[in-house]
Amino acid sequence: MALIVQKYGGTSVGTIERIHAVAERVIATRDKGNQLVVVVSAMSGETNRLISLANQIDTRLSLREMDVLVSTGEQTTIALLSMALHAKGADAKSYTGAQIKMLTDSVHSKARIKDIQCGNMQADLAAGNIIVVAGFQGVDEQGNITTLGRGGSDTTAVAMAAALKADECQIYTDVDGVYTTDPRVEPKARKLDRITFEEMLEMASLGSKVLQIRSVEFAGKYNVPLRVLSSFEDGEGVGTLITTEDEEMEQAVISGIAFNRDEAQLTISGVPDKPGVASDILGPVTEANIEIDMIVQNVGEDGTTDFTFTVHRNDYDKALALLEKTGKKLGAKKVKGNDAIVKISLVGVGMRSHAGIASSMFAALAREAINILMISTSEIKISVVVDEKYLELGVRTLHSEFDLDQEAV
Amino acid sequence: MALIVQKYGGTSVGTIERIHAVAERVIATRDKGNQLVVVVSAMSGETNRLISLANQIDTRLSLREMDVLVSTGEQTTIALLSMALHAKGADAKSYTGAQIKMLTDSVHSKARIKDIQCGNMQADLAAGNIIVVAGFQGVDEQGNITTLGRGGSDTTAVAMAAALKADECQIYTDVDGVYTTDPRVEPKARKLDRITFEEMLEMASLGSKVLQIRSVEFAGKYNVPLRVLSSFEDGEGVGTLITTEDEEMEQAVISGIAFNRDEAQLTISGVPDKPGVASDILGPVTEANIEIDMIVQNVGEDGTTDFTFTVHRNDYDKALALLEKTGKKLGAKKVKGNDAIVKISLVGVGMRSHAGIASSMFAALAREAINILMISTSEIKISVVVDEKYLELGVRTLHSEFDLDQEAV
Repeated sequence: MALIVQKYGGTSVGTIERIHAVAERVIATRDKGNQLVVVVSAMSGETNRLISLANQIDTRLSLREMDVLVSTGEQTTIALLSMALHAKGADAKSYTGAQIKMLTDSVHSKARIKDIQCGNMQADLAAGNIIVVAGFQGVDEQGNITTLGRGGSDTTAVAMAAALKADECQIYTDVDGVYTTDPRVEPKARKLDRITFEEMLEMASLGSKVLQIRSVEFAGKYNVPLRVLSSFEDGEGVGTLITTEDEEMEQAVISGIAFNRDEAQLTISGVPDKPGVASDILGPVTEANIEIDMIVQNVGEDGTTDFTFTVHRNDYDKALALLEKTGKKLGAKKVKGNDAIVKISLVGVGMRSHAGIASSMFAALAREAINILMISTSEIKISVVVDEKYLELGVRTLHSEFDLDQEAV
Repeated sequence: MALIVQKYGGTSVGTIERIHAVAERVIATRDKGNQLVVVVSAMSGETNRLISLANQIDTRLSLREMDVLVSTGEQTTIALLSMALHAKGADAKSYTGAQIKMLTDSVHSKARIKDIQCGNMQADLAAGNIIVVAGFQGVDEQGNITTLGRGGSDTTAVAMAAALKADECQIYTDVDGVYTTDPRVEPKARKLDRITFEEMLEMASLGSKVLQIRSVEFAGKYNVPLRVLSSFEDGEGVGTLITTEDEEMEQAVISGIAFNRDEAQLTISGVPDKPGVASDILGPVTEANIEIDMIVQNVGEDGTTDFTFTVHRNDYDKALALLEKTGKKLGAKKVKGNDAIVKISLVGVGMRSHAGIASSMFAALAREAINILMISTSEIKISVVVDEKYLELGVRTLHSEFDLDQEAV
C-alpha cells in the first residue's frame, strides 16, 4: 500500500462542483489501494474576498490578524471537501494547520516550517480515513496562527509528504506538467516525463510558474518524489515527475529553456578600481530593498572597472537613480540602464559532463544575429541577457539547437 | 481596575462600519480604566453563507466538518475587529476557541463547555492588550473543533467572565435591556434596571428572546453579573443588570410578564385512574421527541382522571394523533385539543414572600372576562393558558394590575 499526498490549488477547488470532482479523483486514487493525504488551498477568490474585507480597515499593523483571517479560507475548503468525500461514502477527516500541528516560526505571512507532528494522522490513516489538510497555514510555538506565504500550499504538501515518508507528492494544478519551455512562446515545447530537483529549481527561479521554489527546495532536501499533474485532465495523467538524478537513466543534456521578461539591466562604467568597489556600488541598491539578480564585473586596462547587474523591472527607475548618485560619488565615467531586455537560460544537469554547451548556445544565437548583452553561468545553467525583441526568436532557436522537441535518447 | 467581558452579536458586527463602531465602544470602555475581553459572533449572514455552501453538498454525515466550517465565521470577525482596534491605536489580540482553549465535550454542533484554560490571556491582558475572542466555538480533548449551538456566543462570554473572574459580563444586542413585557404588546412596558438570574431564566424560557437560557444559567451558577445593553444606542446605556437577589435592595414583587404564542393544549379526560396512568399518557408523546411544557392532572370523583398538557404548536397535530391512539387504548371518555391558545406568565422572586399574587392575577383577568383554561405555578412564576385572542388584553391587564409601568418603590 502506497501513501500518496495530493495537493489541489484554489482553481481546482474553486466551486462546489469542482470540489466534487476533486473528491472523485481522490476516491479513485484510494480505490487503487493507496492511503491518501489531500492538501487544499482556499477556493479561488476566497483569499481575495478576505483581504478586501481587511483592506477596508487597515492591515499594516496587523500581520498576526491577517493570518487569523486568511487561514479561514483553507479551513472552509477542508470542511467542504471532507463533506463531499463523506457524501460519496468515503471516510475522511479534516486537519487545520494548528491540528496537524504544523509548527512554524513566528514570521506572520511568510512563516517557515520548523516541525510537523502529524497529530493523530497516522492513526486516522490506519483507520481508513482520507486525511484532508489545510494548506498554507501553521502555528508557532505560542499557538499563534501563521501562514507560509505565496505558494504555501505546495510547501505544506511537500512537508506533509516528507513527514509521513509518503511514496509520492502529487501537485494538481492547471497545467499537465513541466515543459521544455513555455508552449506559448515555442509551440514545439514538449512535456517532460521527469526532471531533477536542481533543474526544476532553476526553471522555477527563472520564471517558470508551475511550482513555487520553496516547495521544490523542500522536496529536494527531503527527497520527496514530486509529480505535477493537471486537475482538469480527464482520466489519469502522468504529468512530470521531479526527482533526484537517476544514474541509470539516460539523461538529456539540456532539460529546458527558461526565460524572464521582468528584468532590467544597469551598468556603471569607468569606476576607479579598488577593493570594496563592488559593495560601494551595490550597497545603496540592496539597502533600498531592491533585489539584484545577475552581476557581472570586468576590470578594464586603465585601472577602472565596468560593473553590470540586473534588477526586477519594477525597481528599475529607483535603482537607476541610486546608481547615478553612486556614479558621481565614485567618479564613474558613465551610468546607463536598459529596461527593454530579457534573460534566456539553458537548464540541464547534463551540462556538468558535457563540454561545449555554452559555445553551441552562443553560436546558435549569433547565427540569428542576436546580440548578447550579458552572460552568467552556474553549474547547471547558462543565462544570457538579450534585447527583449529577440525573446521568441532566441527561445525557439535554442529549443531547436538542443533538440528539445525530441525525446532524449 | 475592573475586568469587563463584552459580547457583540452578529448584527453588531455585521459590516465593516459596524465593526469600527464596536471598536470605538470597546476603546471607550478601556479608556475608563478597564481591562477588556471582547467576545464576538460571526458577521450576520456569514454563518448562513457557510451553511448554504455545505447544503450544496450534504451535511448529514459531517457534523464534525460542519463545526470546522462554521467556526471560520467567528474567526473572520476576531481578525477584523482586532485590525479595527489596531487601526485606532489600541493593542489587541485575537483568540480562537482552540487558542483559548475552550475545552468542550465532543457533541458537535451543540457541545458543552467543560473547562477554560484562558491560554496566555492573563499575560496578554496584563500587557495592555484588548482580548478579542471567537464566540460559539471550542475544542474537545482530541483537539477537534466544536461549536456550542444556538446562542453559543453568549455562553462563551459568560464562561470567559466566570473563568477570568470578571467584574461584569456585558451582552450587547439590538435591544437596550430587559423589559417588564414585550413593548410591542404593551407600549407602557418599562425597562428593568435589574432582574435576578432566576427571573431572567423564567422570562427567557417563556419566550423573551433577549438572552439564551444557557448563558443565564451559566451566569447564575458562577455568579457572573450580566448586563444586557444595546450596541446601537449612542452614548453609554446602563441596560439591565442580571444578578443575584440583593437583600438590601427594594425588590418589586413582580418583575415582568412573559408570554408564549407557540403553545397548543391537549386534554384527555375520563381515563380510569390507576398508578402509572400519567406515564401511559405522556410516554408515547415524549418517545416521539415531542417536548411537553405544562402538565395538569385532576382526579375526578368517579375514579377517572382528566389530564391536560401543552406542546409546541408545531408538534400539535402529531401529538393529537398519538393522544387519540392512547385514549382508545386506555378507555378514555374524550380526547380534545386546542391550538389557538397562549400562555401568559407573571414572574417575580417577590412572590415567595408575598401572598395573594395568584388571586389578584385571577381576579384581574376575571374582571376582563378572560377565561383561564389552565393554571400552573412555580416558586417565582404563575402561568395561565388563555384563548389566544386575549393575549394583548391579558398582558396589558396584568401589567397595569401589578403597576409594572411604575418604578418599584
